[in-house]
Amino acid sequence: MASRTRIAIDCMGGDFGLRVSLPAAVNAVRKSPELELTLVGQQTLIEQQLKQDFGDLNKSILEQIIVVDAPDEVTMCDKPSIALRHKKKSSMRIAVNLLHENRVDAVVSAGNTGALMAISCYVLKMLPGIDRPAICTEIPSGDSHLHLLDLGANVDSKAGHLLQFAIMGSALSTVVDGIESPRVALLNIGTEDIKGNEQVKLAGKLIDANAQLNAVGFVEGDQLFNNKADVVVCDGFVGNVALKACEGTATYISQTLKSEFKNNLLSKIIACIAMPVLKKVYKKLDPQQYNGASFLGLQGIVVKSHGSSSVDSFVRAIEQAKKEVESNMLAIIKQRVSLLVEG
Amino acid sequence: MASRTRIAIDCMGGDFGLRVSLPAAVNAVRKSPELELTLVGQQTLIEQQLKQDFGDLNKSILEQIIVVDAPDEVTMCDKPSIALRHKKKSSMRIAVNLLHENRVDAVVSAGNTGALMAISCYVLKMLPGIDRPAICTEIPSGDSHLHLLDLGANVDSKAGHLLQFAIMGSALSTVVDGIESPRVALLNIGTEDIKGNEQVKLAGKLIDANAQLNAVGFVEGDQLFNNKADVVVCDGFVGNVALKACEGTATYISQTLKSEFKNNLLSKIIACIAMPVLKKVYKKLDPQQYNGASFLGLQGIVVKSHGSSSVDSFVRAIEQAKKEVESNMLAIIKQRVSLLVEG
Repeated sequence: MASRTRIAIDCMGGDFGLRVSLPAAVNAVRKSPELELTLVGQQTLIEQQLKQDFGDLNKSILEQIIVVDAPDEVTMCDKPSIALRHKKKSSMRIAVNLLHENRVDAVVSAGNTGALMAISCYVLKMLPGIDRPAICTEIPSGDSHLHLLDLGANVDSKAGHLLQFAIMGSALSTVVDGIESPRVALLNIGTEDIKGNEQVKLAGKLIDANAQLNAVGFVEGDQLFNNKADVVVCDGFVGNVALKACEGTATYISQTLKSEFKNNLLSKIIACIAMPVLKKVYKKLDPQQYNGASFLGLQGIVVKSHGSSSVDSFVRAIEQAKKEVESNMLAIIKQRVSLLVEG
Repeated sequence: MASRTRIAIDCMGGDFGLRVSLPAAVNAVRKSPELELTLVGQQTLIEQQLKQDFGDLNKSILEQIIVVDAPDEVTMCDKPSIALRHKKKSSMRIAVNLLHENRVDAVVSAGNTGALMAISCYVLKMLPGIDRPAICTEIPSGDSHLHLLDLGANVDSKAGHLLQFAIMGSALSTVVDGIESPRVALLNIGTEDIKGNEQVKLAGKLIDANAQLNAVGFVEGDQLFNNKADVVVCDGFVGNVALKACEGTATYISQTLKSEFKNNLLSKIIACIAMPVLKKVYKKLDPQQYNGASFLGLQGIVVKSHGSSSVDSFVRAIEQAKKEVESNMLAIIKQRVSLLVEG
């Protein structure tokens, strides 16, 4: 039992709550016999729903699932400060508490991002040597992907924070992608040294000078997709705007395509013919494909699933957490950060 | 002659120099008999090329075109400071000088953005009451478009600067789109008042409190395309990254579509059938469609055409400058800014 990877699921979070989190949990344990999931939420509801939808679960699967009651929940509209102070019996808070008490190895939640970050920081605390947490996600790039951070845990990041993000993102890429020396770039408004604001220019020098990092300079917004880096670092305000701008563009294009294809009978017929190809493209670009944003810098592994995750993409978030646990990501980050402090 | 709109074209700038600027100039004067274009660049080359490609231009067209010699040029790689100090005989500098001397009403250039901004600020100076210039462009939004600024003239904009950008963007939307009271939004990482960095939160209050502006609050990156605003204001670092991230996403999607359609014989056939619809969509999204970034806040109208502009999109940039001149944009901005100073 000790070798099992134990993950707590905040079952009530996200736009769909149990309707997505429970089937995702069941699918995840079916795929991984070494996984133990602690489902945190309204116990009677969870047990009822499990029985109703998965009454035929065999004993070995049920042994991988534990239910922990949480009478309250954090809603998508709760302010982080309110969630932190007044929702101590919420599924989110109890899941994070379980991690802090070492009763699980990681937490996955599709709930309110701000609340999850506030609760995680308060309960778990930062890793030694890290000043601020960062949110990191994968985006497609070339035929592969890259890790973009920070996506909004911070605003007004200083150069030293950006260096810490670089170390953490690089460690994540090593454990998740198996790349020994991931290429680390800074997001900037030009590729020359003179471009950018003071923090980014200084961070560029710090990252360049750090022997642990494989620095590849600056990338611009339109180079995110060109496979120029494995990790791209930026302030949370910039990263949040950039990621959402990308998502907005993709949505706008797919809507424009759909409306053009619906324009008249001929284009409707063309749409039917083109659908298999279009579906392949949509799938490649689907943000759900890249689900599972990692909260980095905390004394514990927390993975945020999209609020509107599908079952499959929630499973991917669980698998992301599992990978981070099993590859010992926290120890690697700790070790690299300690070099930073010493050096 | 006095009622003509006089525009200087930096003919040597951009990736294609005369190959694009000359046919664009000829097309623009053909379309608008009230336009007078001053072509600035290597005179012998320009005259040779005009004769060779447009030997049959009739007299009235030729009367709309003046050539002014400029022996030097600013390259796309020149640092702004070098261009400003050492390229005083460049086509870009001489075009801006002509504007300063009131021999033309506006300048259009496809050259080096940083150099054009540096030279324009130095020669033309800022409008009274405006501390910093801003670069503004149109992007598609819903069935219409919006004006996004700043796109990189500044980094680390303070709240007061963002308010000035809002005033200028709003004036531009009024003169270009004919919207009396354009909806002005601030780009942020959430729509609640507590979200964002200090500058953006304070700018939100300043814009809200300004009686001239029709403030509609915050928009996030993915809402840029939802027609929630006519003008969206942000710091230049953020705007530059956001715009390029959008362009990068669009390019990535179109490349993915193309490569999927080329995958095998069947998908190649499907591509041929779907091409008319796809072309319509590409055209709608083509950044060339939205060519013509306005430099706002200067004592003169300067429009930047994409470095890789096609002839048609260069013509659009010229028409953008013409519209700004004929609608008296500078006077409108001046008047609105004076209210700001008084109020």
